[in-house]
Amino acid sequence: MPKYQEGLDRLFHALGDASRRAMVERLVRGPASVSELARPFDMAMPSVVQHLGVLEAAGIVVSTKVGRVRTYQLAPNALNPAAEWIGRQRLPAERRLDRLGAFLDPSTDKEK
Amino acid sequence: MPKYQEGLDRLFHALGDASRRAMVERLVRGPASVSELARPFDMAMPSVVQHLGVLEAAGIVVSTKVGRVRTYQLAPNALNPAAEWIGRQRLPAERRLDRLGAFLDPSTDKEK
Repeated sequence: MPKYQEGLDRLFHALGDASRRAMVERLVRGPASVSELARPFDMAMPSVVQHLGVLEAAGIVVSTKVGRVRTYQLAPNALNPAAEWIGRQRLPAERRLDRLGAFLDPSTDKEK
Repeated sequence: MPKYQEGLDRLFHALGDASRRAMVERLVRGPASVSELARPFDMAMPSVVQHLGVLEAAGIVVSTKVGRVRTYQLAPNALNPAAEWIGRQRLPAERRLDRLGAFLDPSTDKEK
């Protein structure tokens, strides 16, 4: 399977879990340690670590370890391939609406 | 788990497989029967039916049966919740770039 498809598989799989999405939502607000990420989830530490591993393997988060504390942060633009793939799956009727929008407001080029 | 989160789980899970994404890409071009969908994939019919079942449970495709032929088509706007969730996960630096873009071109309201 091409690398691009594998990357999308991992991205979408990682996002297919509400706890992992909640961790992403938390990390949008800034970097956090494993224990900070565990706190709101009422989840055993090993589960949190496992979820973070899935997010890291998908390239959604990166981590750095200073002393005994590992800190996670979102990788910039990591979700773009997923967003772009979804953006391309538009039905003809939706494309026509896009073109109508572009016609009425030429400065927004939604088809690019 | 709230219904919204369950829906996102199913959407992202369904998209986490290259064969299912290829079926979505095919259906963007128009409705297709199971055998039409099976043809390009070199995949056993039961596997195709199973993938279509996952896509249908996620609300991404709908099917109608006329006589012995079941035809699948994309459900309009079915991917919107996934696209919108991804769109909200933007780092502060990315938001600042959005605001800069909106400042330079006020007609594109990317933050809405």
